[in-house]
Amino acid sequence: MKAGHALLSSTIHSRNPTLSNSISSFSPLFRSNSLFTYPSALGAKRATSSSTNYKLSRSRLIANVSPTMASAYKPEQARVPPALSLPVPPVTKFKIALCQLQVTADKERNIAHARKAIEEAAEKGAQLVLLPEIWNGPYSNDSFPIYAEDIDTGGDASPSTAMLSEVAHRLQITIVGGSIPERSGDRLYNTCCVFGTDGKLKAKHRKIHLFDIDIPGKITFKESNTLTAGENPTIVDTDIGRLGIGICYDIRFQELAVLYAARGAHLLCYPGAFNMTTGPLHWELLQRARAADNQLYVATCSPARDVGAGYVAWGHSTLVGPFGEVLATTEHDEAIVIAEVDYSLIEARRTSLPLERQKRGDLYQLVDVERLNSQSTK
Amino acid sequence: MKAGHALLSSTIHSRNPTLSNSISSFSPLFRSNSLFTYPSALGAKRATSSSTNYKLSRSRLIANVSPTMASAYKPEQARVPPALSLPVPPVTKFKIALCQLQVTADKERNIAHARKAIEEAAEKGAQLVLLPEIWNGPYSNDSFPIYAEDIDTGGDASPSTAMLSEVAHRLQITIVGGSIPERSGDRLYNTCCVFGTDGKLKAKHRKIHLFDIDIPGKITFKESNTLTAGENPTIVDTDIGRLGIGICYDIRFQELAVLYAARGAHLLCYPGAFNMTTGPLHWELLQRARAADNQLYVATCSPARDVGAGYVAWGHSTLVGPFGEVLATTEHDEAIVIAEVDYSLIEARRTSLPLERQKRGDLYQLVDVERLNSQSTK
Repeated sequence: MKAGHALLSSTIHSRNPTLSNSISSFSPLFRSNSLFTYPSALGAKRATSSSTNYKLSRSRLIANVSPTMASAYKPEQARVPPALSLPVPPVTKFKIALCQLQVTADKERNIAHARKAIEEAAEKGAQLVLLPEIWNGPYSNDSFPIYAEDIDTGGDASPSTAMLSEVAHRLQITIVGGSIPERSGDRLYNTCCVFGTDGKLKAKHRKIHLFDIDIPGKITFKESNTLTAGENPTIVDTDIGRLGIGICYDIRFQELAVLYAARGAHLLCYPGAFNMTTGPLHWELLQRARAADNQLYVATCSPARDVGAGYVAWGHSTLVGPFGEVLATTEHDEAIVIAEVDYSLIEARRTSLPLERQKRGDLYQLVDVERLNSQSTK
Repeated sequence: MKAGHALLSSTIHSRNPTLSNSISSFSPLFRSNSLFTYPSALGAKRATSSSTNYKLSRSRLIANVSPTMASAYKPEQARVPPALSLPVPPVTKFKIALCQLQVTADKERNIAHARKAIEEAAEKGAQLVLLPEIWNGPYSNDSFPIYAEDIDTGGDASPSTAMLSEVAHRLQITIVGGSIPERSGDRLYNTCCVFGTDGKLKAKHRKIHLFDIDIPGKITFKESNTLTAGENPTIVDTDIGRLGIGICYDIRFQELAVLYAARGAHLLCYPGAFNMTTGPLHWELLQRARAADNQLYVATCSPARDVGAGYVAWGHSTLVGPFGEVLATTEHDEAIVIAEVDYSLIEARRTSLPLERQKRGDLYQLVDVERLNSQSTK
């Protein structure tokens, strides 16, 4: 397999000089503070010329394949650029807390209430605390502009995230701060802030997939009436491992989870507020599927249910292990779910079911556009 | 969005003539009797030059975007080539039968037994009948060579598929014939045959992802000890709609289901024999996830459980609807599950949750290598 592969690469180089050149002239679009170690730039060339590879593999490898043709499967090409190997996390075992908070129309109360919950979680040993989607005010298009904060300016312009920063630093914990409406210029975003144990903002995820759905007689909502979608996936190295961040509706798009897995994520965090229709239908299913398909941890955090609210949340904040198994969950009332994460299970599951090595890169390839663009300039 | 898009395409053409040329010189690798109508060859060029697109979209569209930047999302590029629209199926509603058969070491008995089950299913109104994975003999590496048949030669060389052909024609039904071990030259495959109402073999799927797993103390199996993996996805137009075929372990690879959905499948059929470890963990989860993520029907068919067998099947043959909801299922005993499929639900679900239009082709793209290669030659 190795030999066939080397042959393949060198053949591509000589065949497609113009292709390689055109790729390396792209400008850098990968803007976040790069957390990954990239494999060689070869990955990008190989990937973009996938059609060529396929053809070459069939004609060239015919002479020296094993009887099972396994050398033609090219699992490493199922992700473009090739998947990064799982990084060694700073900790193997730690406690996570999912704060399923009751959210009211009183922003000051919501901030004080969240602070208290985070403190309680830390007292119970949590090193990572998750908050729900939109926890500083009601979830509604009318409320988003009113509760929105200027996160980049910070301080008084963003009391919600100022609290998160203060408490993360004081308690020496990592916080995936659910989400709040963010004002940036004349735009609003649904934004999740990740704070490190030093109280610094390590990452900011703006919901990529806006929640625009219409199930007649059940639920209709259009976030795009007020919100703008984010432009980037968000992956961040923290003191408790590499986290991929999504917000609620982002979880419906399996591609995002796949892309995070290929970037070496240990744990995907989805603050989310599914509703009384999509909650029972899909909330647990999607979490378990993302975890099982990608063989990593998935944590979700919902607001507690308020049947008097305009948008009634499903609740059921949950931690799922890398076999897709529910490790801890709760009902719809306010609760702090505390559970243990054990990253050694990721390797164990991947050894038992070596899905990554069994993928058919000769048949399908998932392209991470941002990472590919970044890589082509290296 | 239209205007921005046209601009994009023409810019690519002028920027990357060498790229376009290199693509159109690829040889045809798509070998099946083409069932799709392809969109213009533009798709392939646009797709393979995805990096270019992304960069151009950001610099070029800045002048004429809507406030939400929605024109930069490019959902049509999340599938490469772009997803085909769902074809109008020949029937909207029909009955499907999942024959969860008890399988023995007696091949003649297994064939006669399967025939009887199919006849019973047809009597009950089923227009599509599914059989389990490896239904003509025991599921084991020792047995595969013994029960293997030469399907391409047919007739006496393949009594199992000869029976399927005869009964499909006689009863005027479509049969997704589970799978049997196939001998082809000196290779063995795990192969599913689809027969049309005229008794003709419409498609042959050789399991693409071989079942090689090792869960210590639970289950260890290596199909690759005896079997060779297939080289192609299999999608087929039948009298009851467009079917995507996978066998058992194939269901773990979400990319295959995505690729079938992008080729316009109404229903994915997975004959499968999960076991007493992976069955309770993942069997239902994976079916529901494939259905919900791709908003189409998924049907599975397992052998009945035989606790005395070397490999003990989980059973639980199931039909799942396009919301990921279990529509019909059974326990582990022999059974014929009859249920109604209503394809109008596919459109209804996709209207309520328009996932396809909400994908972020600017961030991720799933490449169907076979279809891309085929398209580049048109």
